[in-house]
Amino acid sequence: MTDYRTFSPDDAMRFADEHSELFGDHSKLSCKEFGDGNLNLVFRVENDKGSSLIVKQALPYARCVGESWPLTIDRARIEAEVLLAHRKLCPQHTVEVLHYDAARAAILMEDLKQYRILRGELIAAKQFPHLATQLASYLANTLFYTSDFALTGPGKKQQVGQFLNPELCLITEDLFFTDPYCNHERNNIHAEIRAEAQQLWHDETLQAEVAQLKADFLSKPQALLHGDVHSGSIFINDENCKVIDAEFGFYGPIGFDVGSLVANLLLNYLGHFGLTADSSRRQQHQDYLLQQIDSLWQQFASQFKQLMAEECKEPALQNALYQQRFMQQVWADTLGYAGCELIRRTVGLAHVADLDSISNSMLRGQCEAKAIKLGRELILQRHSLANMAQLLTLLNYNTAEN
Amino acid sequence: MTDYRTFSPDDAMRFADEHSELFGDHSKLSCKEFGDGNLNLVFRVENDKGSSLIVKQALPYARCVGESWPLTIDRARIEAEVLLAHRKLCPQHTVEVLHYDAARAAILMEDLKQYRILRGELIAAKQFPHLATQLASYLANTLFYTSDFALTGPGKKQQVGQFLNPELCLITEDLFFTDPYCNHERNNIHAEIRAEAQQLWHDETLQAEVAQLKADFLSKPQALLHGDVHSGSIFINDENCKVIDAEFGFYGPIGFDVGSLVANLLLNYLGHFGLTADSSRRQQHQDYLLQQIDSLWQQFASQFKQLMAEECKEPALQNALYQQRFMQQVWADTLGYAGCELIRRTVGLAHVADLDSISNSMLRGQCEAKAIKLGRELILQRHSLANMAQLLTLLNYNTAEN
Repeated sequence: MTDYRTFSPDDAMRFADEHSELFGDHSKLSCKEFGDGNLNLVFRVENDKGSSLIVKQALPYARCVGESWPLTIDRARIEAEVLLAHRKLCPQHTVEVLHYDAARAAILMEDLKQYRILRGELIAAKQFPHLATQLASYLANTLFYTSDFALTGPGKKQQVGQFLNPELCLITEDLFFTDPYCNHERNNIHAEIRAEAQQLWHDETLQAEVAQLKADFLSKPQALLHGDVHSGSIFINDENCKVIDAEFGFYGPIGFDVGSLVANLLLNYLGHFGLTADSSRRQQHQDYLLQQIDSLWQQFASQFKQLMAEECKEPALQNALYQQRFMQQVWADTLGYAGCELIRRTVGLAHVADLDSISNSMLRGQCEAKAIKLGRELILQRHSLANMAQLLTLLNYNTAEN
Repeated sequence: MTDYRTFSPDDAMRFADEHSELFGDHSKLSCKEFGDGNLNLVFRVENDKGSSLIVKQALPYARCVGESWPLTIDRARIEAEVLLAHRKLCPQHTVEVLHYDAARAAILMEDLKQYRILRGELIAAKQFPHLATQLASYLANTLFYTSDFALTGPGKKQQVGQFLNPELCLITEDLFFTDPYCNHERNNIHAEIRAEAQQLWHDETLQAEVAQLKADFLSKPQALLHGDVHSGSIFINDENCKVIDAEFGFYGPIGFDVGSLVANLLLNYLGHFGLTADSSRRQQHQDYLLQQIDSLWQQFASQFKQLMAEECKEPALQNALYQQRFMQQVWADTLGYAGCELIRRTVGLAHVADLDSISNSMLRGQCEAKAIKLGRELILQRHSLANMAQLLTLLNYNTAEN
């Protein structure tokens, strides 16, 4: 960390200029910091013709709920290397990294200013017909080609070592799998759902399943995950979407990434019970979401199966029966991790705006209670839910207003 | 590798002298190489008072079936570091490493000349009442304390990175899980069991299960395994036993180590149908082996359960129902990996003397056929065999002379 110091806008401008050919004339550059400053500085560097790039610099601490804790700036390396690896495998839907500087923990990347953050769009009930198709392709390609199906034993081990990411994994280990299931001071529980949250702390049946999901998060390095692929890490517009923010990337269970996405669509679905008063508009948006969730899994599974059938480099894993079971196991993991995400986004430290922006606190509490209930069912029933149709039935049951 | 050169006996003597205080007067030392020279040089350095130490040096290649292939000398680091880690956790049953030299890929360790190799003893039908108790303790302690139950997330990841061991794992990946199930040139198949071996190459049901076991070997870093704990890696006498040769150590599925041991006792059991003509002597030894196998699992499981109940540092994994399921899964893995070991020791590259030393080739073929059949059943039935008694019933069925 000897060369590290936090960038001023001028530093960021110089960094962008040094490592790209987009800018010719220095005097015409401008730069503005616009990140939320919790974990990273984010600068937009622009020339007078409107071309721009993003400089993202990791801060050596995390500001969170008012306090700060030290956090490795090595996460900038992880982020850059995961994005570079994923972009090779799915260039259409991975943000482009132009340069990474280890000493300064800084990344120069393309500016997605023609895009908007998916979460905000979904809260505004905007719809993107290509969403599921494009994200299914991102997941299938990045996860298949970094798995044991595609890599040699030694090649995979080298990557596992490159992406151990202990500090950021620890955050997920705590916030996803531990805090919500005990009375932890980091939890952030609205008064309206205190009773539902407390039930989680005494639900040993549920905790046994969460233990299994946590053990797999710790010890099932199936593929190079994004590790944090929620609707705040996806930029979208009418034509395309791109995934950003891969600092939580590591080798983990495939269902964790797929489940994170499914859960974030479900959180938006539940949120609209409180966000959209007009029941016909709400229904229309929720139908869209359910169709996208169904399509996301179907298309992901279909592409992953095709890749296993056609591109599997490991002879022992070419067995058709094994591959069929493998997909079933990814499905169960997907439901389980989706359930964990629903719960931790409701009672844990980090909430989502899909629920938190519901202005009526009683209504918000009802939506949050639905998220906890659905999350619990997804975790408990993940091995018996045979397909997405059953999940959707379960969802209708859970979201019936009663 | 710049400082590396293969040791002469004089080099080994100097190395032992430099790094121990056992030897005072250089002129009275003697040294003799006595390894088989396939993978390593092994020297005994002795003084005139009878005190001795072992110097083991990794060769930069493996001589095997007449050819040589390059093999990383980093395996000496793995061996030393696994043994040091395991000795901290189970000093009674792990050979003591006094010094390790990375550049020279050499290890100085205690001489177990009061011990003999377990495989040879079992072939001679010798019995050691303490065998199961001591090895259960070795397995429970080394595997529990290197698992997610005992380590933090970051602590475990650091160790996973330290023990990736790609080259030696690749040998196991190939020899255990791939070669025996196809017509591979590395296979070593006696003419008498060619038909049984060929059946394995077309048994897609079996291959699906072996694929799962291989996938877990690749991607289930539960604990720091010895990785090669067969009866040739165990020194024993009437009082004690000690485990040596940990160069295959890595983070893998716990059932792999337990299953290797179970399988090697089963191989000896099967071998005695050909080794011991006197049926009463044979029966007596086989009864001893079955009792040791039963006791090995019972005592391992009982100690591991107790450690989970009393020493689990990870709050999310303290759940009793989860722990119960965890042991069931280790049991299924144990049977599965035992099955793989039975098969690969019969048709794969590396055989065991328990079978190969049967002089009558027809009798040897019968024993080998039993090993294949039992191995297959263990793999296929590993989730339905509820306990060791059922395994023993299965075994009696399989070994009935018919």
